[in-house]
Amino acid sequence: MSTLLARGPAGAATTRSGAPLRACRGPAPFRSHFQSVVASAAPAADASAPAEKPQKQPKQQQQKKQGGGGGGGGKAAEAAVTPRSEDFSKWYLEVVAKAELADYGPVRGTMVIRPYGYSIWESVQGVLDARFKELGVQNAYFPQLIPYSFIAKEAEHVEGFAPELALVTKGGGKDLEEPLVVRPTSETIINHMFSQWIQSYRDLPLLVNQWCNVHRWEMRTRPFVRTLEFLWQEGHTAHATAEEAEAEARTMVDVYTDFAVDIAAMPVVPGRKSRIESFAGANCTYTIEAMMGDKRALQAGTSHNLGTNFAKAFGTMYLDKESKRQHVHQTSWGVSTRIIGGVIMTHGDDKGLRLPPRLAPIQAVIIPIVKKEEDRVPVSEAAAKLAAAAKAAGIRVKVDSDERQTPGWKYNHWEMRGVPVRVEVGPKDVQSGTCVTARRDMGKEGKQMGVSMEPADFTAHVQGLLDSIQEGLLAQARAFRDENIVDVRSYEELKAAVAEGKWARGGWSGSDDDERRVKEETQATLRCFPFDQPAGPHTCLMTGLPAAEVAIFAKSY
Amino acid sequence: MSTLLARGPAGAATTRSGAPLRACRGPAPFRSHFQSVVASAAPAADASAPAEKPQKQPKQQQQKKQGGGGGGGGKAAEAAVTPRSEDFSKWYLEVVAKAELADYGPVRGTMVIRPYGYSIWESVQGVLDARFKELGVQNAYFPQLIPYSFIAKEAEHVEGFAPELALVTKGGGKDLEEPLVVRPTSETIINHMFSQWIQSYRDLPLLVNQWCNVHRWEMRTRPFVRTLEFLWQEGHTAHATAEEAEAEARTMVDVYTDFAVDIAAMPVVPGRKSRIESFAGANCTYTIEAMMGDKRALQAGTSHNLGTNFAKAFGTMYLDKESKRQHVHQTSWGVSTRIIGGVIMTHGDDKGLRLPPRLAPIQAVIIPIVKKEEDRVPVSEAAAKLAAAAKAAGIRVKVDSDERQTPGWKYNHWEMRGVPVRVEVGPKDVQSGTCVTARRDMGKEGKQMGVSMEPADFTAHVQGLLDSIQEGLLAQARAFRDENIVDVRSYEELKAAVAEGKWARGGWSGSDDDERRVKEETQATLRCFPFDQPAGPHTCLMTGLPAAEVAIFAKSY
Repeated sequence: MSTLLARGPAGAATTRSGAPLRACRGPAPFRSHFQSVVASAAPAADASAPAEKPQKQPKQQQQKKQGGGGGGGGKAAEAAVTPRSEDFSKWYLEVVAKAELADYGPVRGTMVIRPYGYSIWESVQGVLDARFKELGVQNAYFPQLIPYSFIAKEAEHVEGFAPELALVTKGGGKDLEEPLVVRPTSETIINHMFSQWIQSYRDLPLLVNQWCNVHRWEMRTRPFVRTLEFLWQEGHTAHATAEEAEAEARTMVDVYTDFAVDIAAMPVVPGRKSRIESFAGANCTYTIEAMMGDKRALQAGTSHNLGTNFAKAFGTMYLDKESKRQHVHQTSWGVSTRIIGGVIMTHGDDKGLRLPPRLAPIQAVIIPIVKKEEDRVPVSEAAAKLAAAAKAAGIRVKVDSDERQTPGWKYNHWEMRGVPVRVEVGPKDVQSGTCVTARRDMGKEGKQMGVSMEPADFTAHVQGLLDSIQEGLLAQARAFRDENIVDVRSYEELKAAVAEGKWARGGWSGSDDDERRVKEETQATLRCFPFDQPAGPHTCLMTGLPAAEVAIFAKSY
Repeated sequence: MSTLLARGPAGAATTRSGAPLRACRGPAPFRSHFQSVVASAAPAADASAPAEKPQKQPKQQQQKKQGGGGGGGGKAAEAAVTPRSEDFSKWYLEVVAKAELADYGPVRGTMVIRPYGYSIWESVQGVLDARFKELGVQNAYFPQLIPYSFIAKEAEHVEGFAPELALVTKGGGKDLEEPLVVRPTSETIINHMFSQWIQSYRDLPLLVNQWCNVHRWEMRTRPFVRTLEFLWQEGHTAHATAEEAEAEARTMVDVYTDFAVDIAAMPVVPGRKSRIESFAGANCTYTIEAMMGDKRALQAGTSHNLGTNFAKAFGTMYLDKESKRQHVHQTSWGVSTRIIGGVIMTHGDDKGLRLPPRLAPIQAVIIPIVKKEEDRVPVSEAAAKLAAAAKAAGIRVKVDSDERQTPGWKYNHWEMRGVPVRVEVGPKDVQSGTCVTARRDMGKEGKQMGVSMEPADFTAHVQGLLDSIQEGLLAQARAFRDENIVDVRSYEELKAAVAEGKWARGGWSGSDDDERRVKEETQATLRCFPFDQPAGPHTCLMTGLPAAEVAIFAKSY
């Protein structure tokens, strides 16, 4: 598209008036590229998404092309992914690299989110942002640089975050009087503003959210899962009463649970964090805990009841109906790019990503199979028609019409990228009016021949596959989770379960020190007291004393 | 909505199972707030947007309420805005504050974008992001922290940006070996990644964009227009040839021009920057120059042809078709939250904002007028029906059903916020099946009685008003611009025009020093050599020598 230039009769690039195109220091009006793109949009091209740009070909694939394209495999020159069962961590990093989800920044621990990885984040954003708006939350934007003294105002907060801060000490060539913190989270600066905006109970509840980047100086990092800088949304609300704040915190962990289960097909366990695992500055933290493919836990989202902690530190008050000054009761809640790591590790297999259809930026990829030049036009047209039908039915579809790659190469390419459904259209298919579909969650047994290309039938078929895959991924993940949670009645049983990499669930009324001992001795942490509690009575697995609830312990990311 | 709690028979808040709601440290499952919201959605409520939350009432309005609501004016206790003609700068700051677009952060020069202001930015993002995707640009995300040595690699770049940098010198409690720059723009870190991603001509063109925040340590700041931190999009592209890079740079300035003119109703002058006004590290910068209500120029967006400058500094190369290594040719282009300042200052009047309908987050606000309690339900239902019809027709509509404010208060409130169309519905209207509409771009003469409430007629009427307002705002701005650009043939004439605050357009082939002299003596800078050039021949207004083009000089923001 960008290669289209206006050409004069002699073939040289020209200006709109036909004058030769000069170097940019001279006047050079030029036919609008945008107009070129619109004018050249051909029906045989990708109907729904920009044409696949050739920029995503890492060196390995170039080597493969030199070796000649192959039929089905295409793996000849490209190293296969390390199997998950062999080395899960290596598998993960390889998938992130091969699916071109992310890359490493020059500063240790920083991540570059590549376009495909970023499109998954955009999908997450789209769903969550709409949900927040439905709930009356409004987006805003608060400054990233926070005076150090603000962080220090809330005692638990500064204790928790001080070791992780990035500090700006110079600006505009001068040393700053007070270092500025690069936000690790925004409670402090937001309370500073809330204090100015809130006067009376009529100003409550105040519900804001921001989509932004935060920095936490982590030692061990892992793409998406733990990075020095990450993207997230952080919601912050202020209420007149403790009850309302608690209700809001619970509402948001429900929103996150619904998102994880219904959209990301992650059967998270929602629950309450222990005191020592709670957010620094919160009264109470709620969490959604996800089990990854290696059975480790991943905290996939959190919601905090902040009580009046920050309100007291920042003087965030309101006049109640009796004209008395009261502190507001607050919550905050966040989901970050970490959840993409969760999706990768929950569903991925040895071929790469497997994306749940409701989250997948591309739900179906159509591969035109062209062996002879005379087939190109009819096959492309058929593919375009299918794409148009799918798009009209709200399916996120892409035609991979890149002429330089073989079908086999494309199968691997899109399988690695976790696209749920693949459609194959060749010249015989055009003749028979049928096509072939394959599902990312099944091997050859999932392949279907003779799928009607009649638009309504085709889209119903594809939609059916997407629904089935969405359900299937969730069911698979749920079964895996359930078979790897062990009910334990003693510390010995917990140790045995954890040694097998499993989650241990048992009664818990131990002290903070008891909890720390479990971590030191087993590396498992208390993930949560799940909302879904089995019937009691319970006995603490550590102390043998009565326990009101069960807790889940696991090694985690 | 957040105030809905599950209630047991005795009225106390309960858990899902009916047990009393305990403090959050104990188990406290709770009826999902989200379910409460969905269940309680009443037809009479705002059909299209969350109910107006009472958090947006600054102190002034509280005082007004104490004084008793008034009919049409509502201005009794609230200070009127300083007239634009009296003190434009003061007017601007007051509108930003009263329309609750932005507030001041604790760090000098930082801005808090409040929800209404942010919703305008979301509107800008929505339009531009869709356009970029149509052009094949993909969103990604690059790290914000850049090793200082990177900035220093491109000589002009470091010279231009060094005085404006924020530096992180401590992380995780330790001094860093090398300071990290908080990105002022991302060419350097992006080239670092491009160098790794690009191997051959097949990888080109590479077209990426990111939506993010940047910091520039400015001395004089103004909300939206110039802030220490601002939000923007920065596109970065790499091409095989100089021609393609030039075409891309020109395409993007066209995209920006189309956006400014068609969506923001800003009749910008697109053109080329002089060498000394160009981006530090670019071969060539293109700009869209807008005239604000005080006649000063505002650079509203820029697009740069970077040539091979960064490619050479970072070794960003590709193998061409002859297997020779070549440097890539690059562009970058950006629009920021500054453009919101442009919209405010182009269209605003003494009542506040006037938003062009295509950009306005709320295009029409419906005000139910209820004097007696018995009218409430029929009027609310009528308003909700109108809102539903408008929403179905794709109009961004809101019903202001806040019972604590008078209609007069609401008229002022939404006028200040620049909502293009107001609809008034009272009990007599319900009886007659008609309503009243008013236009933000006209006074009483724009008010229309007897507008049919029949859905198709109503929406056609409102859409007609919106189209007319969009055209009218653009025409007004264009007429104002044209009457304030003076064609000059000498430096004396330029000085006279600039002294009147106008833009001066005249032939220019002066040196960089000549240009600096104009700035020192008149405070006017060379805004651009406009693409739209009058027929020549031209004479340089300063030197009297022949000039190939005319340039525009003006005082600017």
